[in-house]
Amino acid sequence: MSPRDRNERPGRAGATRRQFLLGGAVAGVGAAAAIAIDAGLNAADNTAVRTSVSEPLNGDVTVPFYGAHQAGIDTAAQAHGLFLAFDLLPTTDRDALRRMMRILTDDAARMTQGKSALADSEPELAVTPSRLTVTFGFGPGLVERAGGARPGWLAPLPAFSIDRLQKEYSDGDLLIQIAADDPLTVAHTSRMMLKDTRSFATLRWSQQGFRRAHGSVKPGTTMRNLFGQVDGTSNPEPGTADFDTVVWNTTDGWAADGTGIVVRRIAMDLDKWDRLDRPGRDQSVGRYQSNGAPLTGTDEFDEPDFTAKTPIGFPVIPEFSHLRRSRSENTAERIFRRAFNYDDTPTPGQISNAGLIFVSFQADIEKQFTPIQRRLDELDLLNEWTAPIGSAVFAAPPGCAEGGYIGETLLT
Amino acid sequence: MSPRDRNERPGRAGATRRQFLLGGAVAGVGAAAAIAIDAGLNAADNTAVRTSVSEPLNGDVTVPFYGAHQAGIDTAAQAHGLFLAFDLLPTTDRDALRRMMRILTDDAARMTQGKSALADSEPELAVTPSRLTVTFGFGPGLVERAGGARPGWLAPLPAFSIDRLQKEYSDGDLLIQIAADDPLTVAHTSRMMLKDTRSFATLRWSQQGFRRAHGSVKPGTTMRNLFGQVDGTSNPEPGTADFDTVVWNTTDGWAADGTGIVVRRIAMDLDKWDRLDRPGRDQSVGRYQSNGAPLTGTDEFDEPDFTAKTPIGFPVIPEFSHLRRSRSENTAERIFRRAFNYDDTPTPGQISNAGLIFVSFQADIEKQFTPIQRRLDELDLLNEWTAPIGSAVFAAPPGCAEGGYIGETLLT
Ligand code: HEM
Ligand code: HEM
Repeated sequence: MSPRDRNERPGRAGATRRQFLLGGAVAGVGAAAAIAIDAGLNAADNTAVRTSVSEPLNGDVTVPFYGAHQAGIDTAAQAHGLFLAFDLLPTTDRDALRRMMRILTDDAARMTQGKSALADSEPELAVTPSRLTVTFGFGPGLVERAGGARPGWLAPLPAFSIDRLQKEYSDGDLLIQIAADDPLTVAHTSRMMLKDTRSFATLRWSQQGFRRAHGSVKPGTTMRNLFGQVDGTSNPEPGTADFDTVVWNTTDGWAADGTGIVVRRIAMDLDKWDRLDRPGRDQSVGRYQSNGAPLTGTDEFDEPDFTAKTPIGFPVIPEFSHLRRSRSENTAERIFRRAFNYDDTPTPGQISNAGLIFVSFQADIEKQFTPIQRRLDELDLLNEWTAPIGSAVFAAPPGCAEGGYIGETLLT
Repeated sequence: MSPRDRNERPGRAGATRRQFLLGGAVAGVGAAAAIAIDAGLNAADNTAVRTSVSEPLNGDVTVPFYGAHQAGIDTAAQAHGLFLAFDLLPTTDRDALRRMMRILTDDAARMTQGKSALADSEPELAVTPSRLTVTFGFGPGLVERAGGARPGWLAPLPAFSIDRLQKEYSDGDLLIQIAADDPLTVAHTSRMMLKDTRSFATLRWSQQGFRRAHGSVKPGTTMRNLFGQVDGTSNPEPGTADFDTVVWNTTDGWAADGTGIVVRRIAMDLDKWDRLDRPGRDQSVGRYQSNGAPLTGTDEFDEPDFTAKTPIGFPVIPEFSHLRRSRSENTAERIFRRAFNYDDTPTPGQISNAGLIFVSFQADIEKQFTPIQRRLDELDLLNEWTAPIGSAVFAAPPGCAEGGYIGETLLT
């Protein structure tokens, strides 16, 4: 299944009518661009048009659950992302894991399609999928409990000197990533998932993140983080062979067609960042805050020129910049980033308690992610204003077909 | 200014073009319904249309800041609401209050119109207002500090037997309600407001709430809370004389044209609620969870018939139901509710940590709100599953004209 099939498909009631009207264009263009109704362009026959067509709601749009890969990875990032990590109960053995994953799969499959979960006593809250995806990741502990082969890269990351890790935001046996354009959908789905895991696991940590709302900015606009930076420009593009190479694992048995997930909670010191002027900000990343263009270009997607020099002979894109440091000469060392902002209640004395839920997907964490993080640990001006306070790694198993369940390659 | 003027006005760049195309319809119909571009209805001249018009983004829609009343009260509720309550520093005297409110007003006026605040070092985050409103409320302590006359109703509510109040969610000298359809806009605005208050006050509490996202459901759909109930059906309608009577204060000097604000954080025990069957749920409120209709009707907006009896002689809408208890015989005892859901990280042992940020606006809290809360305290089946854990009251001063500031009627 290609990611274009997966993204922004209008779901349930109304789909037939809309597909007729729009000639199936919705899946390709994205729901926002396919919104019907024009209120003035054709004034003559306007009245009929206006009353006979109602705009497709983003709330009705579904992302297919079943497929070769899990959804929520190559899916255009939703406005809200919730990350739940669990510790397995001591009693949860391989059989119990299988039962748990069957239940979770079943409810995730239903809810992502706008149908209520089996034991849902508020089915009315389940009818607005809003591009809901539910993505599962297995931590080292779960794989061990299952008696499966642990891929070499499925282990806590090495310690980095910049780390200020807190146990409350680190590690975990099971990850559930719940993402949708609607916060009530995320809340209700998370409650169902928490109920499903109840007799198998306890919640270890939870992190709530956000991006721009659906309809706030043009579809396809790169997100901005709370430093104000355009964040996500240089990223493999879902639907391309390049993306597939970077993201989908092909070698690790049960984990093949899945991917490695890194979740790092990175605090961003907005107060300190405030004291940095514009040129300082632009240089720390190697891109302009204004539009995300590299310091050697004018448009966001211009290729950075690392050889360009200033009149006095310094690289225009500084050696210490995040852009320079995070880009490896080795093209195998690449990752797919899909981050969310967080902004929690400031603790006493703080003006802000904000940062990035850094999330990246890569076929092999050790070969692709770790070298980048190591380079950034050695040198990256951005470290002056950021600090990793949580870190966890998981293996996303492959997707499944109807009737199957996520994790079946490990648990059957 | 009427609330219809205030809601959903397309802002800034593009407004002229769109207003031309849409014949000014946007303000009346709401941005969602005014979305242009039809991808298939007029296949013949479709290409030209498709490339020459882009849909108005909800992110561009602004709510006017200046006016007789503050915005964010009669404004159709946004998807995200953030409530910040502050304690004044001991050094913040009347002059300082005036300075603070001038700064806050100025930045709120700018940001709601999609312009960056004066000291904004991430102006790029301020360009997506998404119906942003910033609403100020003065607690008893602020009015006292200002040496102003405290309306009789501006005092902590009497203690109720159902209360389980926590200091962390109660009281405060200054309230700032920040609401928008975009979570990043709320986060950035809150940061600016927190910086503005920095030398005058400290954050006492903050509460983050949500409703359905813009575009998730049809505009005008009554919200659902996390019990799954349709919540807000019987509410005065902005733009009507009835609303004006209920909400706008006419008697209290500096507070006239303002309103009284009650913010109660009410925990909802979703686990206990889960164990209640459908008839029990419907009876506890007196309305069907399915569509919000009263138990004596079929449609959400049917008038409840409190005299109707079951075959065996009981009232169809039970005496103990929330609907029966919250509706007073005395029509003066009415309020305007504008609540948001909250869903925080469960504490150990909890499956959920959720509830309602109950927010109501009324001209006189003591005469309108307190009698209702007293009746609910005496009897309301819903109390079985809910508990107030925070409580605060504020007076929203009136709005101001350009050049003025919020609070000028008290502070000048
Ligand atoms: C709060 C922490 C971080 C912030 C604010 C941040 C911000 C940015 C920004 C603004 C860019 C440039 C635009 C883009 O291509 O997205 C960027 C690029 C990038 N970042 Fe980060 N980043 C952070 C952490 C990380 C971490 C932890 C890693 C991986 C270990 C990472 C890896 C990358 C990569 C691979 C690129 C693309 C480089 C290229 O152009 O090839 N970043 N980041
Ligand atoms: C978590 C706590 C609460 C929940 C879940 C809740 C839920 C509801 C529901 C479902 C309705 C019926 C639909 C509607 O008209 O909105 C309703 C109505 C109402 N509620 Fe509440 N409510 C809560 C707390 C309160 C409180 C604290 C007050 C005021 C003290 C209040 C006052 C009202 C009023 C005035 C009505 C309209 C009654 C009428 O039809 O005239 N509610 N509430």
